Amino acid sequence: MFELQLEPVQEGCDSHTSASGCTIFLGYTSNLISSGVRESIRYLAQHRMVDVIVTTAGGIEEDFIKCLAPTYLGEFSLKGKELRQQGINRIGNLLVPNDNYCKFEDWLMPILDQMVLEQKTEGTHWTPSKMIHRLGKEINNPDSVYYWAYKNDIPVFSPALTDGSLGDMIYFHSYKNPGLVLDIVEDIRRLNSKAVFAETTGMIILGGGLVKHHIANANLMRNGADFAVFVNTGQEFDGSDSGARPDEAISWGKIRMDATPVKVYADASIVFPLLVAETFAHNASRLIKEKKSD
Amino acid sequence: MFELQLEPVQEGCDSHTSASGCTIFLGYTSNLISSGVRESIRYLAQHRMVDVIVTTAGGIEEDFIKCLAPTYLGEFSLKGKELRQQGINRIGNLLVPNDNYCKFEDWLMPILDQMVLEQKTEGTHWTPSKMIHRLGKEINNPDSVYYWAYKNDIPVFSPALTDGSLGDMIYFHSYKNPGLVLDIVEDIRRLNSKAVFAETTGMIILGGGLVKHHIANANLMRNGADFAVFVNTGQEFDGSDSGARPDEAISWGKIRMDATPVKVYADASIVFPLLVAETFAHNASRLIKEKKSD
Amino acid sequence: MFELQLEPVQEGCDSHTSASGCTIFLGYTSNLISSGVRESIRYLAQHRMVDVIVTTAGGIEEDFIKCLAPTYLGEFSLKGKELRQQGINRIGNLLVPNDNYCKFEDWLMPILDQMVLEQKTEGTHWTPSKMIHRLGKEINNPDSVYYWAYKNDIPVFSPALTDGSLGDMIYFHSYKNPGLVLDIVEDIRRLNSKAVFAETTGMIILGGGLVKHHIANANLMRNGADFAVFVNTGQEFDGSDSGARPDEAISWGKIRMDATPVKVYADASIVFPLLVAETFAHNASRLIKEKKSD
Amino acid sequence: MFELQLEPVQEGCDSHTSASGCTIFLGYTSNLISSGVRESIRYLAQHRMVDVIVTTAGGIEEDFIKCLAPTYLGEFSLKGKELRQQGINRIGNLLVPNDNYCKFEDWLMPILDQMVLEQKTEGTHWTPSKMIHRLGKEINNPDSVYYWAYKNDIPVFSPALTDGSLGDMIYFHSYKNPGLVLDIVEDIRRLNSKAVFAETTGMIILGGGLVKHHIANANLMRNGADFAVFVNTGQEFDGSDSGARPDEAISWGKIRMDATPVKVYADASIVFPLLVAETFAHNASRLIKEKKSD
Repeated sequence: MFELQLEPVQEGCDSHTSASGCTIFLGYTSNLISSGVRESIRYLAQHRMVDVIVTTAGGIEEDFIKCLAPTYLGEFSLKGKELRQQGINRIGNLLVPNDNYCKFEDWLMPILDQMVLEQKTEGTHWTPSKMIHRLGKEINNPDSVYYWAYKNDIPVFSPALTDGSLGDMIYFHSYKNPGLVLDIVEDIRRLNSKAVFAETTGMIILGGGLVKHHIANANLMRNGADFAVFVNTGQEFDGSDSGARPDEAISWGKIRMDATPVKVYADASIVFPLLVAETFAHNASRLIKEKKSD
Repeated sequence: MFELQLEPVQEGCDSHTSASGCTIFLGYTSNLISSGVRESIRYLAQHRMVDVIVTTAGGIEEDFIKCLAPTYLGEFSLKGKELRQQGINRIGNLLVPNDNYCKFEDWLMPILDQMVLEQKTEGTHWTPSKMIHRLGKEINNPDSVYYWAYKNDIPVFSPALTDGSLGDMIYFHSYKNPGLVLDIVEDIRRLNSKAVFAETTGMIILGGGLVKHHIANANLMRNGADFAVFVNTGQEFDGSDSGARPDEAISWGKIRMDATPVKVYADASIVFPLLVAETFAHNASRLIKEKKSD
Repeated sequence: MFELQLEPVQEGCDSHTSASGCTIFLGYTSNLISSGVRESIRYLAQHRMVDVIVTTAGGIEEDFIKCLAPTYLGEFSLKGKELRQQGINRIGNLLVPNDNYCKFEDWLMPILDQMVLEQKTEGTHWTPSKMIHRLGKEINNPDSVYYWAYKNDIPVFSPALTDGSLGDMIYFHSYKNPGLVLDIVEDIRRLNSKAVFAETTGMIILGGGLVKHHIANANLMRNGADFAVFVNTGQEFDGSDSGARPDEAISWGKIRMDATPVKVYADASIVFPLLVAETFAHNASRLIKEKKSD
Repeated sequence: MFELQLEPVQEGCDSHTSASGCTIFLGYTSNLISSGVRESIRYLAQHRMVDVIVTTAGGIEEDFIKCLAPTYLGEFSLKGKELRQQGINRIGNLLVPNDNYCKFEDWLMPILDQMVLEQKTEGTHWTPSKMIHRLGKEINNPDSVYYWAYKNDIPVFSPALTDGSLGDMIYFHSYKNPGLVLDIVEDIRRLNSKAVFAETTGMIILGGGLVKHHIANANLMRNGADFAVFVNTGQEFDGSDSGARPDEAISWGKIRMDATPVKVYADASIVFPLLVAETFAHNASRLIKEKKSD
């Protein structure tokens, strides 16, 4: 099914708006960066197999933090109180020591100083996507998803970038060195343009919430994506967008009426590596060659 | 259980940061505004029973749109293609005609013009929460949650305010009258300060995703909320924050170690009206009197 | 919706196969008897508001055990090992001490002796439904669902009656006093006949698994139930009958093609008491009078 | 994880109650036989890699029906009414024509005649497990799970064997040739003995409902299984046994206090073939040799 679904996304397009001719929007929630799915995402960014990324604040910062110190495997059942007393934060069955966030602070604060400086002296108009681009450059580490997004000019959108440790740092920093502005208007223009000017688009969305809605809403601006794959464990009965079937998106014009979208009701950490292996990685030699010959 | 959980949030506090002494953060996803839960939320805002609101873009715009034209009851199984051909958008089992969004555009565009003007002439530094405050004033309709939030000075945060119809309008408007800036840095300062300077805090969070994480993260800034009630249908097994049990938040310091948080595994549209009836509404005469005597 | 759904089940029928003219099949999983939903079910049996009951072994035995000793409210998170060491068994957030099962054994063993005796001396051909009828008579307690089922001649089917504490007791007893036979063939004849000879039928099924399939399969014998209400938290994506939508049952002829079945995606312990209150209890005076005048 | 979990089940045991020394109970719901997981289960039965099987009526009959005519791949969204009009039954996204059940009837009826004859002339005391054993012999087809269970003397328990097409046939047949008795008491003795006399036991349970409870309850008779792997999508919050975590089974003594049971929150049709590949199949040459040398 995925073979059929994804093949056309890769082929039969000759637009100039994306490397492949088909603009692929990839969205994922932060837990997937915390988990081992990060490596599959990094692979896609490294080889320019996706064109636009949307994620949450945690989906950004946890990638950088993993470059600074490791995340550990724990258990879902570990007691919050005992972990708190030991300075360990739990993300599902993963554990991140407080010290990792201290390292992140040490790394980030001088960059924030520099950003404020550039805003004041060069008039830089910062947006979340520009900040992520800069951080991808600064981390300078091939393990990072956003290093490769920087290298390969893949824009990464995260409108609520302050909703996480990055926001904590920005908050603390604003008392020492105030004035930073992060504008979300310029980013919505940039994201929507990616959809509007694409010849064909495909959406691969892991999880729900903001990342699912944001990509689908951008594709509404072009009367719908041509291809769509949703992977999540959400259910429609509570009326949430997270659990909505692709057919709801068709009513909005977020997916084209003649598309054949797919929803995989499964944990992305189980199925996404399998999907990447059987689609992008399986066709890697051809896909990478096509990109190079652009 | 809720009686016990909520009682202390209402009583035994005498801080000056919130009307009641206890700062209650209410979060909810957009589908709850689309559904009839909106009326319960409006009731809480009208009577100043909550102190801070966090929601998504849809949670903002659907409230205003409902003031302009009705939402209809449909079925989850209505075909997306047929709805699209009739210009009807589906939200779970609810239906919103395209025409409602046209009315929203007609209402919003002059306000956006005015906002750009004020930015340019008065130096107004717009943030999502300031924009919502202004829209609540402009709608001037007692059916609206945000009219009451405006009247009662309840700040409403929505950092990804561009993720929805509001973003579409801002995007279109930016070509006709460019320059609007919506800064999320000032809002994170404002939100975190609400938590940091509160004597005690309580979190009531309906649904997952950004609204759940954003309130919990703000409460991390004060080493944890004193009270927490989560209502959602998410599960922890996929490692998402949406489905995480409150005990995960304790490991982070988002809920205090000695708190007794509750997660209700249920559709908020069924249980939230029951919860409000048995807690806030049951104690309404006392709660409202306390607020008035501030 | 339930008002509409259930009204016709109660009215407009004049068959002689059931007290009301409409044969209502009620199914529920054992946890609902362990929980407070038992009282709603007992109410329906007491007032002959349902005509056929299907449940699992636990749905039978926990009703009797509650007549012998109380079930306690605990927590989902209580540690299994510690409970085991204290001789306490957990059912969700409910606790049942081992001693309750000892009392059940003391009550049941003489009845099993008597059943074996009757089989040997009178040629009684025991089936699960006949055994449940006898136990309902023996318990002689108006708190018991099956006491009222016995009093009101409501047959109760549970083909896998050995799958629980009853089975444990039957297993132990078979070494002391062997020979008891429980035949499931006579019961399937009896259950299917209830559907085949009914003028109209309605199915109210709480939860999934055997109870859902068994009632629906019996209604297949009559080319489908006229009315159907499913209440469960199951999802269809894994292909299980538990989570299947009513529309799947229409393909089988388990529900009529022109029926308007309803699936409520919710925890029955929250919604079933509300449903009973708004339908059966709301119309109680009329329903009870109709039954009496039969 | 599964490697670790299952290794000890295969090794380090030297009892004589099972081929391997460790008695492995495998349970699964009927949808898994309808799906392609049947082939993984058949593989385990063929190579005597499991010792006891528990399934529902559908889990029995669909295996035989697949030997008589194919099941087709459809869609979850196919309309029940249209399928009914075409004589096609839907099981999730699978389709089974009515004609398949006619073929099943043609095959089964003479066997039922023979069973009644043997009961009357030879005093055969039929139980569900004995009937399944006979059907496995009669089907005589290496594609069948129960052919291999018959060949390898793996008992298969299904106490509610009348809950499905088998029950329909037995019901129809009982009017033409009455008298068949299927006793569930002898089967509970046989199943419980399998657990009681085993040196060590392991439970592998796919899905919930009867199959999960029945295997766990049998292991209660020996104070708990030594190893347990549950694979299902159920959640604990509604208090059902289907969704209960293994820790609930520890409170009952269904799993040993010192065991390290695992629950995989996933669709068995995705993960079970992967699990079999990495455990049983990976060690196949050694496992098969051990069995042969018994």
